[in-house]
Amino acid sequence: MQYFWQKSIRESVEKVLNSRFPFLFIFQEGIILGLPFILLNYKTYLQGTGKGAVEIAKACKAVSEESGIEIAVAPQLPDIYRVASEVELPVFSQHLDGVGAGSFTGHIFGKAIKEAGAVGTLINHSERRLTLAEIEASLQAAKEFGLRTVVCTNNVPTTAAAAALGPDYVAIEPPELIGSGIPVSKADPEVVSGSVKAVAKIDSRVKVLCGAGISKGEDLRAALDLGSQGVLLASGIVKAKDPKAALEDLISLV
Amino acid sequence: MQYFWQKSIRESVEKVLNSRFPFLFIFQEGIILGLPFILLNYKTYLQGTGKGAVEIAKACKAVSEESGIEIAVAPQLPDIYRVASEVELPVFSQHLDGVGAGSFTGHIFGKAIKEAGAVGTLINHSERRLTLAEIEASLQAAKEFGLRTVVCTNNVPTTAAAAALGPDYVAIEPPELIGSGIPVSKADPEVVSGSVKAVAKIDSRVKVLCGAGISKGEDLRAALDLGSQGVLLASGIVKAKDPKAALEDLISLV
Amino acid sequence: MQYFWQKSIRESVEKVLNSRFPFLFIFQEGIILGLPFILLNYKTYLQGTGKGAVEIAKACKAVSEESGIEIAVAPQLPDIYRVASEVELPVFSQHLDGVGAGSFTGHIFGKAIKEAGAVGTLINHSERRLTLAEIEASLQAAKEFGLRTVVCTNNVPTTAAAAALGPDYVAIEPPELIGSGIPVSKADPEVVSGSVKAVAKIDSRVKVLCGAGISKGEDLRAALDLGSQGVLLASGIVKAKDPKAALEDLISLV
Amino acid sequence: MQYFWQKSIRESVEKVLNSRFPFLFIFQEGIILGLPFILLNYKTYLQGTGKGAVEIAKACKAVSEESGIEIAVAPQLPDIYRVASEVELPVFSQHLDGVGAGSFTGHIFGKAIKEAGAVGTLINHSERRLTLAEIEASLQAAKEFGLRTVVCTNNVPTTAAAAALGPDYVAIEPPELIGSGIPVSKADPEVVSGSVKAVAKIDSRVKVLCGAGISKGEDLRAALDLGSQGVLLASGIVKAKDPKAALEDLISLV
Repeated sequence: MQYFWQKSIRESVEKVLNSRFPFLFIFQEGIILGLPFILLNYKTYLQGTGKGAVEIAKACKAVSEESGIEIAVAPQLPDIYRVASEVELPVFSQHLDGVGAGSFTGHIFGKAIKEAGAVGTLINHSERRLTLAEIEASLQAAKEFGLRTVVCTNNVPTTAAAAALGPDYVAIEPPELIGSGIPVSKADPEVVSGSVKAVAKIDSRVKVLCGAGISKGEDLRAALDLGSQGVLLASGIVKAKDPKAALEDLISLV
Repeated sequence: MQYFWQKSIRESVEKVLNSRFPFLFIFQEGIILGLPFILLNYKTYLQGTGKGAVEIAKACKAVSEESGIEIAVAPQLPDIYRVASEVELPVFSQHLDGVGAGSFTGHIFGKAIKEAGAVGTLINHSERRLTLAEIEASLQAAKEFGLRTVVCTNNVPTTAAAAALGPDYVAIEPPELIGSGIPVSKADPEVVSGSVKAVAKIDSRVKVLCGAGISKGEDLRAALDLGSQGVLLASGIVKAKDPKAALEDLISLV
Repeated sequence: MQYFWQKSIRESVEKVLNSRFPFLFIFQEGIILGLPFILLNYKTYLQGTGKGAVEIAKACKAVSEESGIEIAVAPQLPDIYRVASEVELPVFSQHLDGVGAGSFTGHIFGKAIKEAGAVGTLINHSERRLTLAEIEASLQAAKEFGLRTVVCTNNVPTTAAAAALGPDYVAIEPPELIGSGIPVSKADPEVVSGSVKAVAKIDSRVKVLCGAGISKGEDLRAALDLGSQGVLLASGIVKAKDPKAALEDLISLV
Repeated sequence: MQYFWQKSIRESVEKVLNSRFPFLFIFQEGIILGLPFILLNYKTYLQGTGKGAVEIAKACKAVSEESGIEIAVAPQLPDIYRVASEVELPVFSQHLDGVGAGSFTGHIFGKAIKEAGAVGTLINHSERRLTLAEIEASLQAAKEFGLRTVVCTNNVPTTAAAAALGPDYVAIEPPELIGSGIPVSKADPEVVSGSVKAVAKIDSRVKVLCGAGISKGEDLRAALDLGSQGVLLASGIVKAKDPKAALEDLISLV
C-alpha cells in the first residue's frame, strides 16, 4: 500500500479501516483500500519560511495523525534540515539536481538533502523546469539515495513522457491554473482523467497526483474521483490564516 | 575596514596589528592595514556534505581565530542552517535567486537563507550561471536582506560589468582553471591584475577576489600581490586529507 | 513506407525494388521493404555555413538520387532558405521553439522555418536541450505546420519518454560519443537496441534513428542491424574532404 | 557620425543638413549633427514572417530614404537571407550566440548570419535572455565578424553593466512595458535618462536606444529628448495596418 510506505501492509490496512476516513480506491486491477497522498509545497511563501516552515509542518503532522492520511511537506531548501529535525513527518525537497559529488556549486545534491532529512523530492515543478535529460538524471540521483520522486507535468503528453521515466508519482498541474484558486479538477477535469489513463498505459506502478488550484475538501474529493491518488498543493494551505483548519477542510470529504 | 565587517574599525585595526600575520594593503588611495578575505566553496563535495560541512567549518574557524584572517564558508543549501547553528563563522550561500516571497518553487529566497543563518552569498558561479537581469535581481534581493555579495566572473570584461552592478566583491575565475590545480595567479596573472584595474575604474568600493586553482600559500600570496583582496577556493581545502593543515598552509605567506 | 514520405506508397516500393541497394527491414509486424533515413546535421561547421551549406546539400541530393535512400540536411537557421531554394531535398531545422506568432524575439517559429522551406526539425539536440514542456510544445508547433520531427535523446529512459510524446523519430545519441568518431553502434550497442525495444513498447509508430560517432558504411549497417531505421550524423560527412565520397561510403553496406 | 556607418562622415553631414528632418544632438562633448537610429524588431509576428518580412523591410527602406534617418530591421533568423537579398537596408539578427564553428547545433553562429547578409545583432533581448558570460561571448563573436551590437537591458544597473562590455548600443527596455503600448519615455522617463547618464559614466562611446511601448512620433521625440539616440520598437510598426504610414508618423517629430 503506497500511502504508508514506511509501514507494513498489515498496519496500513488496519490504519485505513480504523481511520475516521475509510476510503475505497477502485483501480483497474481490482479494489484496493487506500488513502490519498497530500504533498504541501511551501514555495517561497513568507508564512512557510524559517520558523513558519516548522509551524506549518506541525499542523500537517497533527492532521495526518488524526486522519491517517499521509501528508508530506516540501519546505525551501535551507529549511529542510530544520523541519526534518523538529517534526516527524515526510519532508520533500522542492528540487533535486541530477548531479553527484563534485563541481556543482549551487546545485542540489541528493546526498545533501537526504542527510538533511528529506525522504523525497519534487522534480520539474512548473516554477523550476528541467530538460528531459536533467529530469532523468534527477530521478537517477533520487533513486541512488532512496528518495521518493514526484515529477511535475503540464498536460497529458508530458505526463505520459514523465511516466515513461518511472518516478513514484507524476503531478499534473496545468500552469495556467497554478495559484489561480480555480481547481484543476473543476476547470479541466479531462487533463486529470486523461493523465490517469495515459499513465496507466505506460506504467501502472506510477501514481498520479493532481495540482493547481486545489485547496478545499471538494477539490481533493473531485481529484480522487477523477482517478488521481492525491494532490500537490500550496497557497491554499500555506497562506491560510489557520493552516490546520484549512487542512482539516481539505480532507473532510475523503 | 572591510575584512572585519562585523566589528568596529578600532577593534579591527588592533586585531591586525596584534595578529601573527600583519599585512599591508597598498591601494591607489593610500595605505590601508588589512587582511585578506578567504571564502571556501564546498561545491557538492562529499567531504563537505552534512556532518562534513560542520567539521570543515570548525577547521576554518580555528584557523581564522589563530590568524585573525576572515574565513567564510559556502556549504550546500541544505547545510547552511546546520553549519550556522553549530559553528560561529560567516556562512555564505552558494547561490541566491532574485525572487521574493511567492510562487518560486525550488528557488533560493533571500529571507530563507538569512533565517537559516547565512550572512552572504555567491552569485553567478561558473557552475550556476545567471542572466544579467537575474544577477542584478539577486543583488537587489541580497541587499534587501543584508547579505554580502560575491559575484563570480570569467574574464576582465565580465568583471567590469559585474562591478557596475555594485556587489561587495567580484570573484574572477577563468573557468578553464577551476578545479585544475593550476592557480590563476600563475597561469593567467593578467586576468587578475586586469580585473583589479577594471574594477577600480568602474567602482573603487567593489573588492576583487580571485579564484580557480588556488590552494597553497604561494597562490594566495601571488593573488594578493596582483592586487586582489582575497580568494575564493574549493577543492584544495575541502578535499584535503587535513583541511586545517591545508588552511594553515594557505595563509602561511600572508 | 516512411522513407518516401513525399511520394505515394507505390512509387516508393518501386523505387526500392529498382534501387541499387534493395534492403529488407524486418519489423515485429511483418516484413517491410525499406531504406534507411539519413539526416545530416551541419551544426555550426564552417564547411556547412553559407555557400558551403548549399554545396553539401547538392552532394546529398546526388547520392540520394543514385541510391534511392532519403538523405535530409539540417543546415543552420539562416541557411535554410538558401539551401531549400537552391537544392531540392528535404531540409530540416536544427531547432524549433514551441512558440506561436508574437513576442518571442530570437525564437524559432514554425511558420518561419516552414516558409523558408524546411520540411522538418530536430528537437532537443544534446547541444540545444529543452525542458520537457518545451519539447512537447515544439512538437505541437511542428505538427501545426506539417513539419516532421526528430527528438534527440541521451539514453533508454529519455528515449522512452520522448516516444511517449509521439514524434516521427527519436534519435538516440549518447552525449559522450557525439563527435568522438567512435560509433554508438559499436561503443554502446545496447543503448540502440534498448531504445528500439523501449520505443516499440510505447508507440510502434515512432521510428528510431541512432547518432553519435556514425560516419562509415559499417556504422550505418550496424545501426540498422540493431533495429534503428536510420542515422543522424554530422562531422563525418560535413567535415570530410569529399562529402560526396563520404556519403557513398556511408551507404555502401545498406 | 554613427548613423551613417556605411558612408563617409562628409556625406553623412551633408545628408543631415539637406534632409527634411534636420536635428541637433547635444552631447556632453559638444554639438553633433545627427539623426536617430531606428531598429525594428519583427519578433515572431505573423505580419513579419516570410514574404511579410520583405514587405515591411521595403517600407522601412522607403521611409529611410525619404527622411535620411537610418532604419534597420531585425527579422526572424530564417528570414535574414531573404530580406538582405531583396532589400538594401541594414538587417540585424534577433539573437547571436557566442559560439564559434563546431558542435553547436541549433545555435546562431556569427559567420552564418554575416553570410546571410546581417550587419548587426540584438543580444540579450528580454525575450531571449543570456547569462553575463554569454553576452560577453556574443559580443566577441559579433566583433569577430564585424557585426554591430545592440545589448538589451532592463533597468539602470544592467544598462551600466552592459555598457561596461563595450557594445555599440545598449537598448533599455523595462520588461513590464514591452508590448504594452505605453511608451517607456512617458511611463518611466527616469529609466531612460538614468541609463543615458550611467552609460556616459562607464563608456561614452556606447550609444543608448530606448524601447518598450514606442510607436508614435511623440514617443520617439520624447526618447530623443531624454538623451537616447534612437529606439528599438516592434508591434507598433510590424502589426500596423500600414507599416509605412506608421513609420512616417514615428519620425514626424524628429
